Amino acid sequence: MNLIVDVGNTLVKFAIFEKDNLICKESFKLSQFKKEYKAIKKQFPKLKSAIVSSVGRLSDQQIDLIKADFSVLELNSKAKVPFTNKYKTPETLGVDRIALVSASMLKYSEKNVLIIDVGTCITYDFITNENEYLGGAISPGLRLRYKSLNNLTANLPLLETKVPKTIVGDSTETSIHSGVVLGTINEIDGVINTYKEKYSDLTVILTGGDAKMLSKQLKSSIFANSDFLLEGLNYILEFNSK
Amino acid sequence: MNLIVDVGNTLVKFAIFEKDNLICKESFKLSQFKKEYKAIKKQFPKLKSAIVSSVGRLSDQQIDLIKADFSVLELNSKAKVPFTNKYKTPETLGVDRIALVSASMLKYSEKNVLIIDVGTCITYDFITNENEYLGGAISPGLRLRYKSLNNLTANLPLLETKVPKTIVGDSTETSIHSGVVLGTINEIDGVINTYKEKYSDLTVILTGGDAKMLSKQLKSSIFANSDFLLEGLNYILEFNSK
Repeated sequence: MNLIVDVGNTLVKFAIFEKDNLICKESFKLSQFKKEYKAIKKQFPKLKSAIVSSVGRLSDQQIDLIKADFSVLELNSKAKVPFTNKYKTPETLGVDRIALVSASMLKYSEKNVLIIDVGTCITYDFITNENEYLGGAISPGLRLRYKSLNNLTANLPLLETKVPKTIVGDSTETSIHSGVVLGTINEIDGVINTYKEKYSDLTVILTGGDAKMLSKQLKSSIFANSDFLLEGLNYILEFNSK
Repeated sequence: MNLIVDVGNTLVKFAIFEKDNLICKESFKLSQFKKEYKAIKKQFPKLKSAIVSSVGRLSDQQIDLIKADFSVLELNSKAKVPFTNKYKTPETLGVDRIALVSASMLKYSEKNVLIIDVGTCITYDFITNENEYLGGAISPGLRLRYKSLNNLTANLPLLETKVPKTIVGDSTETSIHSGVVLGTINEIDGVINTYKEKYSDLTVILTGGDAKMLSKQLKSSIFANSDFLLEGLNYILEFNSK
């Protein structure tokens, strides 16, 4: 039984896998780490090993808490991964992107795959049907777009995410919802089409916190999978323990 | 002879119009306002009236400087405009958007027009062939996207705008350039296509600081005009002095 610890820009996620099966997951703020870790350890006494993936700010003390109990794989760019990495600067490749690409090896090996993770950032990752990871793109996620309009301009309000009824916003609020949400949807559909022009047999995976909401709006045909990153982390842990 | 003062989120612009002709323009930081104002007044002694459009932070003292010399139209949502405003909250419609819509009345009256202003923000504004302004959208501009990736996440660098060679970024830097620049281009092409599906005879104007760079990348056919907002302000000034 494996413990997966995924520290993102906004939240921490714990997931428990029994072989390939996700049997429990939860998310919480980083400040709750110690309390939540003790609770999950108590709930799952059969845990054997753990993987920690952190793009956020997990402290050494927090990692040491887990190391005291399990063999821990701290995911970084030097970990053994189940794909050929053609990224020019592998040392700067985010651990979240390493996990997503690993997940595609488990489920979509030998296919052309574009993984779109819509979280704090939107990451695009492309893997060829020869299992070569080529790279992709990073753009701001929905909340970052809303925040940037408010933080970095003179007069615009901070809004909560909302899908507008029409592209023509007839107030400041509906204009911002159209620009952010429908703008992002147009971006994603456009990027998918750019890849499809080159790779006609493209499989597209949509994952991340906003995947459910956005998947209903996209014109492109995609697979939505909110656990893709966790599945990838579990696969890396299994792959490294062989 | 008219003085146009356009105070944006980043820079101040002065423009001089003789009737409909733009004969001089310059941009500078707000802190240089007094010096630049004195210089342009000296250079153009025939100036008669002025219009001030400010989405940024022009102070009362700065406006009083101009008022001491000319009759000044301070553009706000109550100004007389050459179009029918169907915006539901006209009191919150940005003065820059009022100016852009006015410019379309001068040059593209009785056409379906989508104006895309790519500056600090990207604003989309739609006017029907009955000269009715319906609204549009507001999304973050290129610099805001770059800044938000750096300011609001843990690990990403702040980069200068650059058009990447390919959509598949193979380093953190090229991934960000792909996500920001090609993401924005896909957003704009997608939004244009969404309007075109409804309004087949659509005229698209691209303006703003990033228009020149982006216009070369777009698939859609557009008119690039970097002076559209200034032309609109001059038109509003003329329209109000009749």
